[in-house]
Amino acid sequence: MNKVITISRQYGSGGREIGAKLAQKLGIPFYDDELIARAAKESGFAEAAFDNVEKRATNSFLYSIAMGMNAYGNQDIGFTHLSLDDQLYLAQTNIIRKVAQEGPCVIVGRCADYILREQENTINIFIWAGMQARKERVIRLYNVAKNKAEDELIKADKRRANYYNYHANEKWGKAENYHLSLRSDYIGIDHAVESIIHYLKSAEGGISRI
Amino acid sequence: MNKVITISRQYGSGGREIGAKLAQKLGIPFYDDELIARAAKESGFAEAAFDNVEKRATNSFLYSIAMGMNAYGNQDIGFTHLSLDDQLYLAQTNIIRKVAQEGPCVIVGRCADYILREQENTINIFIWAGMQARKERVIRLYNVAKNKAEDELIKADKRRANYYNYHANEKWGKAENYHLSLRSDYIGIDHAVESIIHYLKSAEGGISRI
Repeated sequence: MNKVITISRQYGSGGREIGAKLAQKLGIPFYDDELIARAAKESGFAEAAFDNVEKRATNSFLYSIAMGMNAYGNQDIGFTHLSLDDQLYLAQTNIIRKVAQEGPCVIVGRCADYILREQENTINIFIWAGMQARKERVIRLYNVAKNKAEDELIKADKRRANYYNYHANEKWGKAENYHLSLRSDYIGIDHAVESIIHYLKSAEGGISRI
Repeated sequence: MNKVITISRQYGSGGREIGAKLAQKLGIPFYDDELIARAAKESGFAEAAFDNVEKRATNSFLYSIAMGMNAYGNQDIGFTHLSLDDQLYLAQTNIIRKVAQEGPCVIVGRCADYILREQENTINIFIWAGMQARKERVIRLYNVAKNKAEDELIKADKRRANYYNYHANEKWGKAENYHLSLRSDYIGIDHAVESIIHYLKSAEGGISRI
């Protein structure tokens, strides 16, 4: 199995747990969004950001940054003109590309599907679930107050969608951006892992004629 | 298996064929969009449409129709004020509800996922595929000219999205409207059928804790 698997997920859908179990079953590394963010921060991200500005100038996110920079009248575009968030995003981009090049792995969140869109061995997964199941999950596992759970879920999804829509040129949660998308609460965590493995095995022969 | 399975699909993704094979494997009836449309036409749809206007007055599609009618200053809302397309949609709605109540089946297209959204045993599937595979498929199977294939595909998808967005209060192709969404050209038609059966079997116990 020579695949890099990205997982995008609604908050409380079990997507991270599914990703972790999948990586364990496949015996490959697992990188969640917090790990990627921490790695980017620790790497000292100035260098990484410069690297990307040059490589990906046609990207509209970067184009808009560049436009902002030109407003400074500064042709010698400087890293310090980027917002901290944008610097961090660019550093994360490099970390994600690096781990994806090292070999098969599972990466959760951080627009990894978008960042790796040109890497042919990438398989993108989306996990979602019904509101009731997600509420129960975040109350049970993340200590969210019962009367605030729904509000928290809606806000978290909005943050994820905004993050994605800002950095990628795509809408978060469009079915055709994912090879496989699953509603997890109809089948449970373990069956979701199995479904993904089934898809991966079926995809091993390369693109099929349909 | 007590499920009604709806299939939404991109043109040329093999979604109808996947649905037909799925129905055959499960030994349940298969209704495609053409069959539903023909049945609605043959049923004489005036009666069906009336029925729905009364039952579903909170639906925004119907609300907008009702607003249009009021412009006639006519409180006695008449069926003949509906466009032919809207009449046909309402008749199809009734056909879809009827077949879904008769027992397990596979229904392709016609907003069936939206129409049956309150019927708890419905499982919604979305099938899509890469542009190259879809092109090859429509050239091979539907006699579409090579140099017109991409254009035809884009237009057909737009028609499907417009039809859905007009009649449903939802965007076509949003991952969270489908229990399962699959990219078919990575795994082929038969594996896609198997993936769906795997999901259905996993879902048999009812909603799982996640």
